[in-house]
Amino acid sequence: MIQVIPVRISADIKPHDELDAIILGAAGQEIQNGDVLVVAHKIVSKAEGRLVSLADVKPSDKALRMAKEHGKDSRIMELILRESAQILRAKDGIIISETKHGFVCANAGVDQSNVEGDSAVLLPIDPDRSASRLRDAVKKKAGKEIAVVITDTFGRPFREGQTNIAIGVAGLDPIKSYVGSRDMYGRKLRVSEIAVADEMASAAELVMGKAEGVPVAIIRGYKFEKSASSSAKALQRPRERDLFR
Amino acid sequence: MIQVIPVRISADIKPHDELDAIILGAAGQEIQNGDVLVVAHKIVSKAEGRLVSLADVKPSDKALRMAKEHGKDSRIMELILRESAQILRAKDGIIISETKHGFVCANAGVDQSNVEGDSAVLLPIDPDRSASRLRDAVKKKAGKEIAVVITDTFGRPFREGQTNIAIGVAGLDPIKSYVGSRDMYGRKLRVSEIAVADEMASAAELVMGKAEGVPVAIIRGYKFEKSASSSAKALQRPRERDLFR
Repeated sequence: MIQVIPVRISADIKPHDELDAIILGAAGQEIQNGDVLVVAHKIVSKAEGRLVSLADVKPSDKALRMAKEHGKDSRIMELILRESAQILRAKDGIIISETKHGFVCANAGVDQSNVEGDSAVLLPIDPDRSASRLRDAVKKKAGKEIAVVITDTFGRPFREGQTNIAIGVAGLDPIKSYVGSRDMYGRKLRVSEIAVADEMASAAELVMGKAEGVPVAIIRGYKFEKSASSSAKALQRPRERDLFR
Repeated sequence: MIQVIPVRISADIKPHDELDAIILGAAGQEIQNGDVLVVAHKIVSKAEGRLVSLADVKPSDKALRMAKEHGKDSRIMELILRESAQILRAKDGIIISETKHGFVCANAGVDQSNVEGDSAVLLPIDPDRSASRLRDAVKKKAGKEIAVVITDTFGRPFREGQTNIAIGVAGLDPIKSYVGSRDMYGRKLRVSEIAVADEMASAAELVMGKAEGVPVAIIRGYKFEKSASSSAKALQRPRERDLFR
């Protein structure tokens, strides 16, 4: 059996906050060896200072043009362009881009919800590193060996509704491979790789919600494959192997 | 807290098996009011007779041509064409199509893994109806009010690895809407619709695996929004609103 345990954090996270101490304060007694700590990226971004005051953003000509065309705030549009490696689709106010990390998502992850004042929050610069830092801190401060998954909520082609996915991981292999495995009749399995870190992010979202002050969840009882050098980049399909880019 | 409880079914499911009785036999004592029963489509398809002996499949000229081009069994290719409303991509042996139900997936869901002999299994004809039948049977035979999600494991653009998603639902709204909701600062939420049925499917996959004889999971403790007339079609983005088709 797997348990998905919500961790409530009511305090607003601010730049330079010690996120590991805050999470351990909220969940410390609860964390056990072998747990997966799933953390919504927004509190990570806030603690890492990835907050931008829109008053400080000067939109480029391109941002002004695109903002007008798509009915967006030109300063938000400027941030989207800065965070993007490439704009993939721009239509009727929906901007889908590939971020500099290689994620494909709306608005390059630039987000104004659950952010104080006239600011926007960006994705962490290196979500794998953010996950590693949290994992190391839990080991150092609480003496527990865990894995960490940093998440964001992305849309996807073909399907309505968004799902929570993994943008950073530490301590676990984000993909479970069945390559070479056989089914109950000895036949090679068609489904050969499962994105378990994305599935854990989705499982965690069921207790996190969007407005309830639960930015962290603990997944307990899932026997993940440990990995010292894991990266959520393993979940990014290279452009040249993508049939829909 | 949410619990994800595996339900082991070691018997091979055959056409005309009473799937509800088999699932209740395996999980009956365990099922409680408010649970979500998550069921891998393969046992549903098998019980509903959606098994095709390849010896009975006569490939069309188009199937023969495409099979040759993509290195596939021509009888499997024929089944893929029959199950598809439209082939979206065909490249290097990967066939992505829109099924007659409206799902976008590889091989139109035609699958030979965990199938006995020289046969293939197809998706259920009407997975919502399959889910409804199971839900009604659990109410009638066990007296429990539950929701049911029927799943398959799909790939997706942009990301490596497959995830388990909902192809049929009964008794719950597959999308949780935050439209009109406000964040902790009173701002309208950017993320307005979460595909919770897909997230439940993904959570369940973490205990189901692919080769372990666990085709069913119970999700307990998730307060889903009840719906008498729900359909997994709510998760299908209409082609005209899809930026990647």
